[in-house]
Amino acid sequence: MNLRQVILLLACAGLGAGTALAADAIREDFKPSTLNQPGQAFPQVNSQGYARFRVMAPDAKSVAVSLGLGGSGGTPLAKGEDGAWTGTTAGPLDEGFHYYHLNMDGGTFNDPGTQDFYGSIRWESGIEIPAHDQDFYALKDVPHGTVHQVLFASKSTGSIKRALVYTPPGYEKGRNRYPVLYLQHGWGEDETAWARQGHANLIMDNLIAEGKTRPFIIVMTYGMTNDVKIGGLASFDVNHFQRVLVDELVPYIDASFRTQADQKHRAMAGLSMGGMETRWITLKKFDVFSHIGLLSGGTISPEDVMGAPGFKEKVKLVFVSYGSRELTGNNPMRVGNPREITESLQKVGIRSVFYVSPDTAHEFLSWRRSLRELAPLLFRD
Amino acid sequence: MNLRQVILLLACAGLGAGTALAADAIREDFKPSTLNQPGQAFPQVNSQGYARFRVMAPDAKSVAVSLGLGGSGGTPLAKGEDGAWTGTTAGPLDEGFHYYHLNMDGGTFNDPGTQDFYGSIRWESGIEIPAHDQDFYALKDVPHGTVHQVLFASKSTGSIKRALVYTPPGYEKGRNRYPVLYLQHGWGEDETAWARQGHANLIMDNLIAEGKTRPFIIVMTYGMTNDVKIGGLASFDVNHFQRVLVDELVPYIDASFRTQADQKHRAMAGLSMGGMETRWITLKKFDVFSHIGLLSGGTISPEDVMGAPGFKEKVKLVFVSYGSRELTGNNPMRVGNPREITESLQKVGIRSVFYVSPDTAHEFLSWRRSLRELAPLLFRD
Repeated sequence: MNLRQVILLLACAGLGAGTALAADAIREDFKPSTLNQPGQAFPQVNSQGYARFRVMAPDAKSVAVSLGLGGSGGTPLAKGEDGAWTGTTAGPLDEGFHYYHLNMDGGTFNDPGTQDFYGSIRWESGIEIPAHDQDFYALKDVPHGTVHQVLFASKSTGSIKRALVYTPPGYEKGRNRYPVLYLQHGWGEDETAWARQGHANLIMDNLIAEGKTRPFIIVMTYGMTNDVKIGGLASFDVNHFQRVLVDELVPYIDASFRTQADQKHRAMAGLSMGGMETRWITLKKFDVFSHIGLLSGGTISPEDVMGAPGFKEKVKLVFVSYGSRELTGNNPMRVGNPREITESLQKVGIRSVFYVSPDTAHEFLSWRRSLRELAPLLFRD
Repeated sequence: MNLRQVILLLACAGLGAGTALAADAIREDFKPSTLNQPGQAFPQVNSQGYARFRVMAPDAKSVAVSLGLGGSGGTPLAKGEDGAWTGTTAGPLDEGFHYYHLNMDGGTFNDPGTQDFYGSIRWESGIEIPAHDQDFYALKDVPHGTVHQVLFASKSTGSIKRALVYTPPGYEKGRNRYPVLYLQHGWGEDETAWARQGHANLIMDNLIAEGKTRPFIIVMTYGMTNDVKIGGLASFDVNHFQRVLVDELVPYIDASFRTQADQKHRAMAGLSMGGMETRWITLKKFDVFSHIGLLSGGTISPEDVMGAPGFKEKVKLVFVSYGSRELTGNNPMRVGNPREITESLQKVGIRSVFYVSPDTAHEFLSWRRSLRELAPLLFRD
């Protein structure tokens, strides 16, 4: 994958919401989205996955929602007699989380009905289409871990940076040391994405409660992916972030938390641009990280491994995943056949796992499921 | 203070932004507000405290900002030839944090230039007028504590609730036990307010770095203040929140963190409606809390104490504070003379401190300063 492909990928990101065509009649069982602000009735979602929007703006000239079926360019709203603009998507959206905004009177605004989530280098509106398998990231009455906000000094950038740190249930009162997964967001997002949009903490709480994964710490920080605007990615230099991550954050975490502070017990994974960062950094820093996850963020090939002497002796797992809709059509991210590339790592002696999230695109349900699949594979050696 | 006064107070909250009249010429040294979204040039603030807004919406019929001088009803924006609506406040705003929103085409929207903060039972836009004393809540290169997000089961409400917990620098690696302050937000806000709008964690980090306060834990949770809408406060029953706080959260915190788990080392404080909750709860539960802080949230009088046998033997401090602008004019919150009432507690043998934040209203700079004044007074006995 080259930089032009990266840029094309980013330009395509977010277009994947729903590709099914409307066929059945729309069921009138719409309910408020679970992400709505307290007391807000709209946006709503029905049992088929249609989304309905309602925005009060009697004097507006035009209001449209950016979210719609793939390639549709969004969902236009129409004004009713009460001055509210309403509209329903032309078909069911994919299950899971979607970013969107309002295109209103020539400007870009958020839907006052729902909460905001940082994506596309802006706080965007969010809506959740309940997934048939949503139980694995649901808030349940199980022992819960803690998400910590920590502030660490970054000398290389001359700033104080923030990281969010998940510790498993029992960490506070216990004495155990834990392995650590460094988990990166995508372009346009920040360190809040994995906990808020991704529910990484709840996924871990539930997996741990079911005995499906070894408990470990997750560290999420800002990947500096937005310091260049889209189109300017050719100037992106991963070394800046690598210094913050490897030389500043890893030592801070090892000094501040009860970690197992060695390569065997340190993993790195990321989604989209965070997956690319993971690939770039771990191909050089395999003396720091032993387990690698690329979620909708490219592959590591046997050729890559040959170019990184020592990698195959030190790395214990390469996990690669995509949403199924990323594997069809014209996706510049898909260079060759990612499954074949990933599985061919086995032939050069590297344990590799390829996972496909059913019926999802370049969006967070793909990545929630990928974390669910990745976690049990980590730190087993 | 009775419920009608409470309701009037809430109706008046947020009107206090700036009361000075414009006199000098406006200095053209506007800079982006520190709360802006990444890369956003507007809103801006100048060195006098004027705020200037700019919103792109070429086809809008009208755009106004809710924020303006006290009683002005906001700041109208005018459309320029480029389709952007701009406007400047009629005078300097008070220093500190202000909530606002856009009134646009008959609807309520947020300013896409800045971040959102939960207030008024909605995510509102926020702007920060740099305060002359902002150093005490600045992000500095000192040892930083951690803000934890914890999830606890609440049987009385049949739900899983969230709390944010500040632990002082060194907590993770140390063995010490710490006192705990339970710190409540105001009406329309939630458990995020004190850390985000209030910078409670940074205030503590800075006080601790300067040796000005004993390190302690701060616990912030949702005070259920919004479960009734404004005007319906007559139905507010503090017992629901008291059960969550005293019977569920306090035991959870004492079981999960290294606390000094006794009345002597447990405080409660709150702002506005959170101050009223503090007052109502501590007048009954003085066997649970020894130090009390009411920030723009009423007073405790000698008469109150007489009605609560045992209170004066158990309570070590009553701290009361207001913004100076709350002590003038027609403020229904000010029943009698709060300074006199608070100081008269000394006569019945209760240590009391009254603090006034200069040139601020019912807003967060009053409460940031109040926390700075309160923290050093806690857990000294």
